[in-house]
Formats: sequence, C-alpha cells, structure tokens
Amino acid sequence: MYGAGDVRVEEVPDASISEPTDALLRVTRACICGSDLWPYKTMEPDPDGARMGHEFIGVVEDVGSAVESVAPGDLVVAPFVFSDGTCDFCGEGLHTSCRNGGIWGRNGADGGQAEAVCVPQADGTLVKLPVAEDDALMPSLLTLSDVFATGHHAALGARVEPGKTAAVVGDGAVGLCGVIAARRLGAERILILGRHPDRTDLAREFGATDVVAERGPEATERVRELTGGEGAHSVLECVGLEQAFETAVRIARPGGAVGRVGVPQLDSLPAAGVSFVNNVTVSGGIAPARAYIDELLPEVLEGALQPGRVFDSEIPLAEVPGGYRAMDERESIKVMVKP
Amino acid sequence: MYGAGDVRVEEVPDASISEPTDALLRVTRACICGSDLWPYKTMEPDPDGARMGHEFIGVVEDVGSAVESVAPGDLVVAPFVFSDGTCDFCGEGLHTSCRNGGIWGRNGADGGQAEAVCVPQADGTLVKLPVAEDDALMPSLLTLSDVFATGHHAALGARVEPGKTAAVVGDGAVGLCGVIAARRLGAERILILGRHPDRTDLAREFGATDVVAERGPEATERVRELTGGEGAHSVLECVGLEQAFETAVRIARPGGAVGRVGVPQLDSLPAAGVSFVNNVTVSGGIAPARAYIDELLPEVLEGALQPGRVFDSEIPLAEVPGGYRAMDERESIKVMVKP
Repeated sequence: MYGAGDVRVEEVPDASISEPTDALLRVTRACICGSDLWPYKTMEPDPDGARMGHEFIGVVEDVGSAVESVAPGDLVVAPFVFSDGTCDFCGEGLHTSCRNGGIWGRNGADGGQAEAVCVPQADGTLVKLPVAEDDALMPSLLTLSDVFATGHHAALGARVEPGKTAAVVGDGAVGLCGVIAARRLGAERILILGRHPDRTDLAREFGATDVVAERGPEATERVRELTGGEGAHSVLECVGLEQAFETAVRIARPGGAVGRVGVPQLDSLPAAGVSFVNNVTVSGGIAPARAYIDELLPEVLEGALQPGRVFDSEIPLAEVPGGYRAMDERESIKVMVKP
Repeated sequence: MYGAGDVRVEEVPDASISEPTDALLRVTRACICGSDLWPYKTMEPDPDGARMGHEFIGVVEDVGSAVESVAPGDLVVAPFVFSDGTCDFCGEGLHTSCRNGGIWGRNGADGGQAEAVCVPQADGTLVKLPVAEDDALMPSLLTLSDVFATGHHAALGARVEPGKTAAVVGDGAVGLCGVIAARRLGAERILILGRHPDRTDLAREFGATDVVAERGPEATERVRELTGGEGAHSVLECVGLEQAFETAVRIARPGGAVGRVGVPQLDSLPAAGVSFVNNVTVSGGIAPARAYIDELLPEVLEGALQPGRVFDSEIPLAEVPGGYRAMDERESIKVMVKP
C-alpha cells in the first residue's frame, strides 16, 4: 500500500529464512482485514509503501535450524502477531506483547497478502492444521488468525457469561465473529447493532436474537427498551470509531463491561463520566490470537463453529486491489485471497 | 455551598423522618471529601445552594416504622450512597446503582456536614458500630463511609494481587487509602506518585515502597525505570484529572489494569491507543462503599488498618468553610468535622 486507496501487487524478492528460528511458508490462503481499511482510507502517500496482510494459512517449505515444532509439508495457520511462545507475556497469554514478537508487514517482516512469507519465531507462532491445504474448512480455519480470535477477545473482555445479555456494536466481520463468540460463551440474548441487512441476517444465523439498526442516542434508547431499561451486561465494541465506543459505554448495564477490539480511530475514549457513574469496565485491545487458537481449533475442525461464513468473496492475488475497494465500499464483508 | 469558594454554615429546618424506611441520625463525625473540592473550585453561583457532606457517623435518634436493623441509641456509619440493600444491583454488590438509592445532598436528601441527617433506606444503608461514640477509632471508622472504601475499590478495579506491583496515582486521602488497600491485598511493591512529602511520607508508613515525585512523561519514565521497563500490574487512579489518567494508563504493564476512582474532570479518557495496544483494562468508578464495609470493618476495629491517619485536622461545624479552604490549599490532607 502506497497511500490511501493505492494498493499494488508487485514482484518483490523471494521470502527467505535469515534466522534459525524462521520458517518459510508458501501462502495458501490470506485475506483482507477490516483494520486494513483504516490505512486504505487515510494513509499518507509513502514512496516506500507498506507490505500488507496479517492473516494467512500456508504450507511450510523450509525451516531454520532451531525450528522443532513444524517441518516442511506441514499446513499451518499464523496468528496476526508473531511471538516466541516462551517469554513471560506469552506465558500469560498476552502474545501481542511478546518480548520477541512483531506484526506482519512492519519493521521488515513480510506481509501475508503474498505468495510466500518468512515467519519469525516459527515455534511460538505457527499452529499445525490436521487437514489438506484445500479442505473445505479453510475459510473458518483462516479466521483463527485474527477475525474470529478478535471476536473471541471482545467477548472475553466484555465478560460474556451464560444466561446474560450481550450487545455487539458493529456488523463487520469482527462483529459477526463476536456474535459467534458470545453465543459460544453462553450469552442468552445477543443484540447486534448494525444497519446492513445482509450482515445482520448472518448475525441472526450466528445466534443474534435482536437487531438494532439505530445509531447514536437512538441506538442507546433502543437497547434500553430491549433490555428492560438496563442495558447489556456485556458489550463487544467491534468498530473503533468514537460514536461506536460512546454507544458501547452507554448501552452497558451498570457494573457491566465493554470488550473493545475495534482499532481505535480516536485519541481518547468518550463517555468517561458515564462509565464512572455506572462502574463500566473497559477491557480488551489487540487480540492475542495465538493464545486462543488451541481452544477454538477443535470446534472449528468439528464444524460446530463456522466463522468462515464471514467470507463472501474469494480472489486471486492479482485482484487484491479490487478486494480492498469491495470491502471499503461494503460490497463485501470480508475477502479471502487465494494466491 | 453557593458557588465556588462560597461555603456557608446555616440554620436549616430540623431533619425529620418522612418515610417508614427512614432513620434520623444525630451526626457525631463527618468530614470533607476531596471530591467536594471540585465544586469548591468550579461551581457556578446558585442562589439555592447545595447541601454538602456525604461521609458521616452518627447516633440513631429515631426510626420509621419499617426499620428493623437499627434502633435509637445505635452508633452507625453511613456509606456515601444510600441504598435499599435488596434490589438486584445491591445483591451484586453495586449499591451505587441501587434502584432506590441516592447520594447525600442531592434531590432533597440531607447533607452530612450537619448536626442531623435523615437517612433513607436505613436498613440497607446503615452499619452498626460496636463502639462508643467518642472511641479513638472514630477517624478510621469514618473512612469506611467513603475514602477507604474508595481506595479499596481502586485496588479491586486495578486487580491488585499478592506479589505483584501496584502504582497509586495521587497522594490525596484516597491515594493514601489506596496504598493501604493495595498492601492489604498483598501487593509486594507499591509505588506512590505524589509530590507532597508529608503525604508521601505517610504513604510509606502505609506500605508504599517507592515514591515518584515526577509528573507526566517524566513520571512514566521513572515508573518504567523502577519496574524493569515494564510498568505496574495494577494502577490505582486516585485523582480524576486528564494528566493523572493518562499517566495511569501509560505506567500500566501490558495486560495490567487501571482502577479509577478519581471523579473524572474530563469528558473522555486519554491514551486510547496505548491502552489498546497494551490490553490495559480500565475499571472502577464510583465506589459501592456499602459493599465493602462488612469486609473491612473487623480489621479497622482490631486496629490492623489505620486509614483514619489521613485525617490531620478536626474542626467544629462552624469552621467548615475554613476546612474547605485548608484542603483546597493543601494545608490539610483531610479534615474531620465534629458537630
């Protein structure tokens, strides 16, 4: 990406192993993230550009001398942050703060919207998938790299509990995965705040019980109506814009929690007085996807969870620029890339 | 209070019982709260004025026909929010959101900086004290009404745990009580951020292990130095100003928590990006003091906890205006009122 709206598919030098802890992957599936749309809307022109893509599945082609957990031929999924798996933060399940970690496409790391990627900290990062590379489960397995793990993180931050009410702010792919996660954690009632019928219809299939198409103060009022005036115990903030965050705080029940996973497009979090008076906890942040894959993978393999349904488009690498455009214009919920 | 800096002691009609759930108290101890200083600094002139004081101990003089738990002659402490003790929020320990509750001095309720107070919801609100009305423990018992309970709420919101590092932002009475609470919950290391040596000296006596006198970015840097570059697992925000909150977020260790109890003097919470990237949880709010009194009272009665040491001045009712001035000018940490 060379600037807002300027995505190009280019030949770059082949990805290669440089550290003994690296693995080289041939990418079999990647995708475009809702968070990629923020720079797509706002990035200042940069002649050096930025490599894009942080969600992918691939086949191991080669490994460094220190890599023990994966071998050439293995199909693996990579979470959107690489991590060593051995430091104290990884031990605490906060792989996003790994002392030897990093994000794809930053600081010299490869991007995942590509034919191949060098994976640093391969032992800590990659998770083997016991299926063939073109298995029908690929879309759902790919969501473990970010979008479903992020929805799960929102649900945990929002402290979803069995029998309680959850509200999901945002009907993008993360919000839809948040519905799945809230349902999985036992929420009895799940409200989704969104105004795109194709998306809220899918949310209903995932377990949403109510759709709130209003925004701002009207949305708050509608949620209160639907919850006996109280608000939701758990609110999953899956957008990142100021109004969405403000709504999230205002629709939370006193003593409730907001799990925020929308990348914040604001410097400060609104409604500081409301959250104070109502003792609303604000938790969440960038999701440590790696921490969740082991737990979520079996249910995806069984087909009990189908987060891959958020993909409504599949394109080859050459069409990635059009994929960004389609997602930005809401023609597509989430685009899968098959290199 | 009739406006900023304008506190008057006036004769008002005698407090009296109007509901069967009321109790009439003769106030034996009250005090001035750090939160009273916000209107003292900023209140627009109001010819009707506002009754002040929300922390008090008193002797029950009379009770309504439905009151069962206290009787004339009982010495009782009142938390700073009255509550019925029976609704779902009270059952969840969130008495500040009680469906039949309220705050002293608002919406027709009496204020505690007075000779007598009518206590609504007496059964849910008042806690009997098994001591005489002039017992030497009065200062510490009085802190259960708000300031110590609030420090405890900050420590809970900040998820203080045994062996971990806590940082307390603010060396006012709440911050000092936060040090006691953090120590009580087992924090191994307790940093206090404050620049008043008399207060930080008291913090050390309460269990603080390090004093950080810097502010803003320098404070953040100093805390990082003191914590091996990491920050504190738990941060107690006991001020409410923007800079204090920003510092609180920035000195938190990734995955850590900020327990906020400073009444927010800002519309939004800064450092939204930092808390996102570091997965810092922001919890807390107005403290449900009533929920904590049963737990904290025994240790205060034993003398194991001495939060009453935050009082460094005792005045009669007539001198309350001077008490506000003394606290506002930092001549006094916290002023006790003996009507």
